[in-house]
Amino acid sequence: MAGNTFGQIFRVTSFGESHGPAVGVIVDGCPAQLPLTTDEIQLDLDRRKPGQNALSSTRKESDEVRILSGVYQGKTTGTPIALLIENCDARSQDYEQLANIYRPGHADFSYDRKYGHRDPRGGGRSSARITAGHVAAGAIAKKILRVKNRIEIVAYVSSVSDIRANIDSDTLSLADVESSPIRCPDPVAAEKMRARIRKIKADQDSLGGTIGCTIRNVPAGLGEPVFDKLEADLAKAMLLINAASGFEIGLGFSGSALRGSQYNDPFVVEDNQVRTQTNHCGGIQGGISNAMPIQFRVAFKPTPSIARQQETVTRGGEKTSISIQGRHDPCIVPRAVPIVEAMAALVLCDHLLRQQTASL
Amino acid sequence: MAGNTFGQIFRVTSFGESHGPAVGVIVDGCPAQLPLTTDEIQLDLDRRKPGQNALSSTRKESDEVRILSGVYQGKTTGTPIALLIENCDARSQDYEQLANIYRPGHADFSYDRKYGHRDPRGGGRSSARITAGHVAAGAIAKKILRVKNRIEIVAYVSSVSDIRANIDSDTLSLADVESSPIRCPDPVAAEKMRARIRKIKADQDSLGGTIGCTIRNVPAGLGEPVFDKLEADLAKAMLLINAASGFEIGLGFSGSALRGSQYNDPFVVEDNQVRTQTNHCGGIQGGISNAMPIQFRVAFKPTPSIARQQETVTRGGEKTSISIQGRHDPCIVPRAVPIVEAMAALVLCDHLLRQQTASL
Amino acid sequence: MAGNTFGQIFRVTSFGESHGPAVGVIVDGCPAQLPLTTDEIQLDLDRRKPGQNALSSTRKESDEVRILSGVYQGKTTGTPIALLIENCDARSQDYEQLANIYRPGHADFSYDRKYGHRDPRGGGRSSARITAGHVAAGAIAKKILRVKNRIEIVAYVSSVSDIRANIDSDTLSLADVESSPIRCPDPVAAEKMRARIRKIKADQDSLGGTIGCTIRNVPAGLGEPVFDKLEADLAKAMLLINAASGFEIGLGFSGSALRGSQYNDPFVVEDNQVRTQTNHCGGIQGGISNAMPIQFRVAFKPTPSIARQQETVTRGGEKTSISIQGRHDPCIVPRAVPIVEAMAALVLCDHLLRQQTASL
Amino acid sequence: MAGNTFGQIFRVTSFGESHGPAVGVIVDGCPAQLPLTTDEIQLDLDRRKPGQNALSSTRKESDEVRILSGVYQGKTTGTPIALLIENCDARSQDYEQLANIYRPGHADFSYDRKYGHRDPRGGGRSSARITAGHVAAGAIAKKILRVKNRIEIVAYVSSVSDIRANIDSDTLSLADVESSPIRCPDPVAAEKMRARIRKIKADQDSLGGTIGCTIRNVPAGLGEPVFDKLEADLAKAMLLINAASGFEIGLGFSGSALRGSQYNDPFVVEDNQVRTQTNHCGGIQGGISNAMPIQFRVAFKPTPSIARQQETVTRGGEKTSISIQGRHDPCIVPRAVPIVEAMAALVLCDHLLRQQTASL
Repeated sequence: MAGNTFGQIFRVTSFGESHGPAVGVIVDGCPAQLPLTTDEIQLDLDRRKPGQNALSSTRKESDEVRILSGVYQGKTTGTPIALLIENCDARSQDYEQLANIYRPGHADFSYDRKYGHRDPRGGGRSSARITAGHVAAGAIAKKILRVKNRIEIVAYVSSVSDIRANIDSDTLSLADVESSPIRCPDPVAAEKMRARIRKIKADQDSLGGTIGCTIRNVPAGLGEPVFDKLEADLAKAMLLINAASGFEIGLGFSGSALRGSQYNDPFVVEDNQVRTQTNHCGGIQGGISNAMPIQFRVAFKPTPSIARQQETVTRGGEKTSISIQGRHDPCIVPRAVPIVEAMAALVLCDHLLRQQTASL
Repeated sequence: MAGNTFGQIFRVTSFGESHGPAVGVIVDGCPAQLPLTTDEIQLDLDRRKPGQNALSSTRKESDEVRILSGVYQGKTTGTPIALLIENCDARSQDYEQLANIYRPGHADFSYDRKYGHRDPRGGGRSSARITAGHVAAGAIAKKILRVKNRIEIVAYVSSVSDIRANIDSDTLSLADVESSPIRCPDPVAAEKMRARIRKIKADQDSLGGTIGCTIRNVPAGLGEPVFDKLEADLAKAMLLINAASGFEIGLGFSGSALRGSQYNDPFVVEDNQVRTQTNHCGGIQGGISNAMPIQFRVAFKPTPSIARQQETVTRGGEKTSISIQGRHDPCIVPRAVPIVEAMAALVLCDHLLRQQTASL
Repeated sequence: MAGNTFGQIFRVTSFGESHGPAVGVIVDGCPAQLPLTTDEIQLDLDRRKPGQNALSSTRKESDEVRILSGVYQGKTTGTPIALLIENCDARSQDYEQLANIYRPGHADFSYDRKYGHRDPRGGGRSSARITAGHVAAGAIAKKILRVKNRIEIVAYVSSVSDIRANIDSDTLSLADVESSPIRCPDPVAAEKMRARIRKIKADQDSLGGTIGCTIRNVPAGLGEPVFDKLEADLAKAMLLINAASGFEIGLGFSGSALRGSQYNDPFVVEDNQVRTQTNHCGGIQGGISNAMPIQFRVAFKPTPSIARQQETVTRGGEKTSISIQGRHDPCIVPRAVPIVEAMAALVLCDHLLRQQTASL
Repeated sequence: MAGNTFGQIFRVTSFGESHGPAVGVIVDGCPAQLPLTTDEIQLDLDRRKPGQNALSSTRKESDEVRILSGVYQGKTTGTPIALLIENCDARSQDYEQLANIYRPGHADFSYDRKYGHRDPRGGGRSSARITAGHVAAGAIAKKILRVKNRIEIVAYVSSVSDIRANIDSDTLSLADVESSPIRCPDPVAAEKMRARIRKIKADQDSLGGTIGCTIRNVPAGLGEPVFDKLEADLAKAMLLINAASGFEIGLGFSGSALRGSQYNDPFVVEDNQVRTQTNHCGGIQGGISNAMPIQFRVAFKPTPSIARQQETVTRGGEKTSISIQGRHDPCIVPRAVPIVEAMAALVLCDHLLRQQTASL
């Protein structure tokens, strides 16, 4: 009810605040017999953590994950997997002055109204730090997808501000993405993006952008009509990411301007498999995967925390202004790439397991 | 698990196929003591039903709803409300020839792969006819929102193909929308849209478009971090609608090109209320409503059923072609307006009830 | 939330009131490809329906079930199965006089306090009539259990008042039970029970009793620690039945007086299978089935509706007395036998499907 | 799905194994603004922990709880409360020899069949150690019940082996129970029980027993028909406790031998309140509380771990025998008293919160 659990069969329950003792998740419903080590989870956590390069936040978090349960002798036991990430570099003093002010673009005000009070240290529960748990759980989901069906998820920065990358998602590999410090595998666009981010940082301002994602080797049949359609669960998962403000599957918004005869993907037979000639629908029809790559895009608003002076009000309702001096990414989009992957993995893994009971 | 229930406290369970005996829903969790009549539900169903004007499908469905339980002497009893809509004009013969063919843009193939077989009559469970139940349940949700908080939901056609309406959503009323046969309250754009739809029909083709939605009088505090954020639940709800392919909250995709200093909504105090000066975030911050109007937009792909010849394959994997002669709307966007409202109402109503237990 | 859905993967949502237009269920999560006809469901409904013999209520209900969805060409489609049973013999006038009185032993008062009002016709939602839907859903669950694992559920009257049957549950068949009009396969005890029930009816009073249940061919591994243990889900399912007041698994209460060395079931190997020599634990260890027959017992209080004069109060809080003249079973235990089977089937079927995702 | 979450609005998710790094729970759905300290939770944990007296297990666990999230400045924030209890005295070597043997009366075999392998150290996930988390979560639930409605839960040992206590549950206080080392507030019976337990320990055997529970100040209206009846949820909660094998509400099994005219509780008016003269139904009618004290009883089988030699088989299916030398309570019933309270508190708290949305 209180909204801290995600998934139906593969269920992730999250806890923690930015500057409390720890953040973490319990993963319930992971099948037994999956080989699993801390290192595999750590790998993805390291991709998300701050301070990876000059463009990102300088908060130093080792983000070291511990497995507290659910794994015995290197294999999952089928019981809940508790993952704990202690908060190390929690400089609460950075934030204390902010306890009484509503930061523009942040959840301070809405949390206050919802609960009557809030943990203001580093944004408390609303902090993007919480997504460390998402990424840790996602690492397990990815492994299941890989082991069971060789399903592969590749996300990448598709735009920063108005700079759009030109990317062939069909051939794109995870290595292509990771070889770019900004996780944009179009080198020309990537260079422009980096320059723009450097400039905006100097301007004490911030940028948004978009992330594209392609998922390969998805078997046909994943997704549950009528109320758990696969694209709907993906949309929800993506909008759960901090700063996300839009989602489109396949051609999405631009496809709404096409004619049916242009948009419809004709069925063909290739290598004895039914496929579609084009993939305008993004691999999902009627809420159910059709074995084509799943392709979607997510919009992110600009980082709300900026050093530039902004008008706002205090908790008491008095006018004031604020300049947020903390350690913030001027553009969080590159660091959101592994989070997009993780959330997509949670959705796919859940539906893969659900599909096991669809038919006698 | 099988995905036919929506909501946590206000729970809607859907059943039915396009050409089976009936479609319907069970609404569980509707509070007792709500005055409720069949007529109120019928009103919204009539707005959704086909055959309303020359531009829409000529399938004739009286779409008459019966309340089978949960209401006694004109008031809800707190027990499940079963709503039944019998299927009258079910010309199965229109579809029988299609049982063996995968219609492009439809769920025929993915259902087949998921379940091993499917009810092919009128698209079976994947038919938009199922949304009659959504609308009926939504009518109850809307009433709760109105009675408890005067919350008002207004959806409208914001574009058809590349024709965009120019609409001031702040002052828009439901009457404005309903006075337009195409549910676009910008008369100039509406006229262009109608002409374009007429033309596409003659072309045996179809169009997509977008729907905007604004929700007023939402109290601050609705939405549950971290995994049931309000915008995420809205995104899911919208992507559940047949043919929906995108969702954006507030500025959405276009906002991803702005700077933080442009995007952030400054807090101000007006009439002793904390408000934001602008509403770029669309009324939700950190997943929780901030008392500003909630504003979002949904993309719809063009109607997949077109009379024009299309290439496809049979169940057996043989090449064939198809011309779909049924009674289909060349542009379903106007008829999707009450469905967008209904799904938004389900989300809001659920979160309104959930909020009752957020604090001691 | 409002408590009208049962099960996690095989989910049953119930609706209806005793004297409303209909009662029924939606079964969501039934795997596709299950052959299913109305007749199979009707068979179990006929075993539950009133008026089967001189000892039971004379309410005449044909209890005819209609399948409204989810079955196509004789096989389930994987989509929700809606089952509708119309109420025919709803003599509301029998009950109208009772609208203002709290019947002792009934839910009139507690419903009033929960919801502020209630449908008083025939007990409304609290009527045992609602269990017709349970039985209909249970018929589908039983079929799945039979088809997938030859699992067989046999329930029987083990006591009426203080008359206890002497039954060897190991060899007991459904036919044995059904050959007894009182569903007690110990002919000597059965005869005493019938005489006692006849006498109590003449006395304008009522009796309780107990039902035993044995479930065979259950594979090892069903049940989910820590919070969905199989015996706990069975306990819940049984206590949901109208008038149920107790549950015990295996030796239950009497076993609490034994020593560990007497109670523990030694493991042995028979026919290359690990089994237990005795079955004091009733086939479940640590919440998980161990492949031995599952055995439990359910207590039922005496029918609350009696013709004998009883003291009570009105809604307004005034003293009054009441004699309930309706058509009530002086002992509902025999008619509860198929309900016990049905509820057990729902639990087993759900856990059988859940077990499919327990391991890679 | 995998069964490690309990509750609908007040949701407890459990993790941990007996000899892993830690056990714990996440409590989601606890309302904001509840004053909460570690000490309050520790109090109940100390009542559950082993080694409290000469009769119980000598495993030494400080059972120190840490609050990792969800509390800020001494008040709950409405976000998940993670509670961590590290395992200190985990002498795995006691158990290593048992990894290959199925202990009679334990879950070793059924876990093996469910998951393909298991953590054998101290019973792993099936250990009663896991209930430390239940008790910690229950402490929060109790506080909510107390703060919101002065609801009070008192459990007590009502029998050990065939020694039954004579207890007036109407006047019983928690202090009465706690003043007895064996948690049986009938001093004569308590003394007999202690002697019997001492003797059975010397005999290298074990005993079972029963626990009674009374819950006062429950408002009318808690419980959800048809599938979440209050007594059914209590039955499930109790059967989840390790070694529990039976549940009865009110008169339970013995009541099944009464006549309706004896069993029915007549309604009366006292102090302007509708009450029942007797309370044979145990405070719940039609699944909903009627404001009378809720009274139930739970049966526990004898502790399965005994030092006496027992016949069993190895994982490989070979005959062997076993004498379990670990530190085990010869009768766990006294230590189960706070667990019964905790589980009852979880059920009541969840239904108290659910009731908030029952009516407009």
